[in-house]
Amino acid sequence: MDLHRFYSSLAIRNDRKRKIVLLLIDGLGGLSHEGYGYKTELEYASHPNLDRLASRGATGMLTPVLPGVTPGSGPAHIALFGMDPLSFTIGRGVLEALGIGIVPDPSDVLARGNFCTVDDKGVIIDRRAGRISTDTCEQRLSLLRDIRVPGCDIELHAVRDHRFVLRLKGSDLGGRIDDTDPGKVGEKPKPAAGRNPPAEATAGFVNAFVAQALSRLRGTSAANALVLRGFSMQPSVPSFDELYGLRSAALAIYPMYKGLARVVGMDILNCGTDFADQLRTLETHWDDYDYFFIHYKYTDSCGEDGEFLSKAHHIETLDGSIDRLVSLEPAVLAVTGDHSTPAALRSHSWHPVPLLLVSPTCRRDGSSAFTESVCARGGLGTLESKYLMGVLLAHALRLEKFGA
Amino acid sequence: MDLHRFYSSLAIRNDRKRKIVLLLIDGLGGLSHEGYGYKTELEYASHPNLDRLASRGATGMLTPVLPGVTPGSGPAHIALFGMDPLSFTIGRGVLEALGIGIVPDPSDVLARGNFCTVDDKGVIIDRRAGRISTDTCEQRLSLLRDIRVPGCDIELHAVRDHRFVLRLKGSDLGGRIDDTDPGKVGEKPKPAAGRNPPAEATAGFVNAFVAQALSRLRGTSAANALVLRGFSMQPSVPSFDELYGLRSAALAIYPMYKGLARVVGMDILNCGTDFADQLRTLETHWDDYDYFFIHYKYTDSCGEDGEFLSKAHHIETLDGSIDRLVSLEPAVLAVTGDHSTPAALRSHSWHPVPLLLVSPTCRRDGSSAFTESVCARGGLGTLESKYLMGVLLAHALRLEKFGA
Repeated sequence: MDLHRFYSSLAIRNDRKRKIVLLLIDGLGGLSHEGYGYKTELEYASHPNLDRLASRGATGMLTPVLPGVTPGSGPAHIALFGMDPLSFTIGRGVLEALGIGIVPDPSDVLARGNFCTVDDKGVIIDRRAGRISTDTCEQRLSLLRDIRVPGCDIELHAVRDHRFVLRLKGSDLGGRIDDTDPGKVGEKPKPAAGRNPPAEATAGFVNAFVAQALSRLRGTSAANALVLRGFSMQPSVPSFDELYGLRSAALAIYPMYKGLARVVGMDILNCGTDFADQLRTLETHWDDYDYFFIHYKYTDSCGEDGEFLSKAHHIETLDGSIDRLVSLEPAVLAVTGDHSTPAALRSHSWHPVPLLLVSPTCRRDGSSAFTESVCARGGLGTLESKYLMGVLLAHALRLEKFGA
Repeated sequence: MDLHRFYSSLAIRNDRKRKIVLLLIDGLGGLSHEGYGYKTELEYASHPNLDRLASRGATGMLTPVLPGVTPGSGPAHIALFGMDPLSFTIGRGVLEALGIGIVPDPSDVLARGNFCTVDDKGVIIDRRAGRISTDTCEQRLSLLRDIRVPGCDIELHAVRDHRFVLRLKGSDLGGRIDDTDPGKVGEKPKPAAGRNPPAEATAGFVNAFVAQALSRLRGTSAANALVLRGFSMQPSVPSFDELYGLRSAALAIYPMYKGLARVVGMDILNCGTDFADQLRTLETHWDDYDYFFIHYKYTDSCGEDGEFLSKAHHIETLDGSIDRLVSLEPAVLAVTGDHSTPAALRSHSWHPVPLLLVSPTCRRDGSSAFTESVCARGGLGTLESKYLMGVLLAHALRLEKFGA
């Protein structure tokens, strides 16, 4: 049985009292940094309130997917929401759409598009079309928007620079289509090819669209062609309400995280532009939901930019406000990340992610602080992220005993 | 390959020297208790002998089933005996039978029965029949014992109060039968319905029995009807002897644990009424077996009753006698529990269970005590219980190398 179905089979539904809060600090985990006494960002930052919570609760580590595996945001969140990230994949096309605020219908096929520049034989000479501006991208898309292909509707949405999203809407579409992007210069874009019958038909629509698009782009100097990759459909995932009888809400500022939360059926609350706004929204809606997902983004961005001190600073900012959350007295509060984003690597990484759990039903483990080194020895041990949902439900006394 | 088949494929059989002892302290794991300085029962109790064993061995934690999952006694023991508790389930009917000392044949179907009270339209008005005494239950069963149903033999056994066990004996019976208990008052008992052909035929026998039973119970004021739940057959599990070439014996006082041990083919030794009796039996039979399962019950009962101090006291009692066991010099001694039963929750829980392993082949990890907080940081890490059997066999040098 799938893990989420197993937890679902034990769920005690429609408890309106014992609330669960998952505070996700994006890219939380760090890496010992030579320039800062071999401390991680979390070890370097001062966060007395998180440390005090650790001393009242239990700590551990989450392995986002499997040891050694660096996850994208899709699998990292899917796992935290209790699904096996190897079974429910969110394709690049869908993720790109979620990132600009598009919520795909389950029947849509999405792909990420890149404008590129080809020579007069159609061979790619610049895969990023000289990194045209978003404005130019938008102008090129406007040339293509009235293309019609029998069998489906087509939408085009600019993302940034040379990147855009292609959305096909129709019935019986299939997303198992290979990339048209050859991945290097010196080759022509490939025709779309489907890997099963519905995808073959859909690939035909894609090729019809591309043929018309190329004729309209011809003559422009750069960005006179396009490639497509990451064809995908939104996985069909049961909602938190169906699975666990949980009324769930997401408090996220960035569109992608709103989109990921919507995949599991969370309500998306409008929550302003910073953590204080998010907390205010949480307070306002406290009685309306049983599970809250709060997404704190800035730590990840700083990690990606290699900004060790800024990442530490954003942890301190969060720490300064967290008592407002604690004072709401959730039955279970979990503070963790979706993955590590060490400033030293300037990217997501595979390192396990610190986890802090506070609940009247948690076994205090004597943790003295919320840091990687404390969490690695914490009483919760090291768990794959996909088990966190069960652990949260258990601590909220929302799971029945298994077996007699 | 199933886990136990894999370990079995590596087993070195019929070693008569290196003995394994599993000392199971039922419901061992506890929860930080506000009234006792946020210590658990095991942390609060004084157990110098267990602590000394920890300093000579290695500690860790067992997750009974999966993170967050609270197990019943069935899956918890099945896992400790090396089987996947999600694959080999012990139904409520079988467990109830084991609990009163019935050892089902693999072809039997068992159900838990409850006497209830219905109005003159057959609608349940009291699901527990006013909690009739066990004597009254026995009297009601005596009205039903000569009911005959062509196709199977029927046995009825009183359990306690309004509860009894129904046992069907025959060939080609099937246990996948839905409960007849609607689970609430204001409804009639449902007819038994099978979920596959053998269960459909068996459900027919059940319905024939119930029809005759109801006509005999009619006219009694309370307990004038019955409902059945947890229809099940004993899972077909290979014995320790078949799997590992282990002569195994159980030293348990309560019938249910004797029954669970018998499921994996252990001999059940008659061992009196307390831990001293169990140790005496162990000494007497030391040369006769290679694996001993000793079940210490009292910790669980105290946890279920919310008796923190009594639970701690029973740990101390066990500690006072354990040197008698140690002096037998088993090749491997494991001390652990089947699950946690924190007095603070008055029930089984999902929290991992402390594990202590002592063996000349174990890697000493510097553990200074046998407590949850030490075990959570122990050298054995946190394992699912189903892996313990392999770990025990390995430390007894009873597993071959895997692969060339």
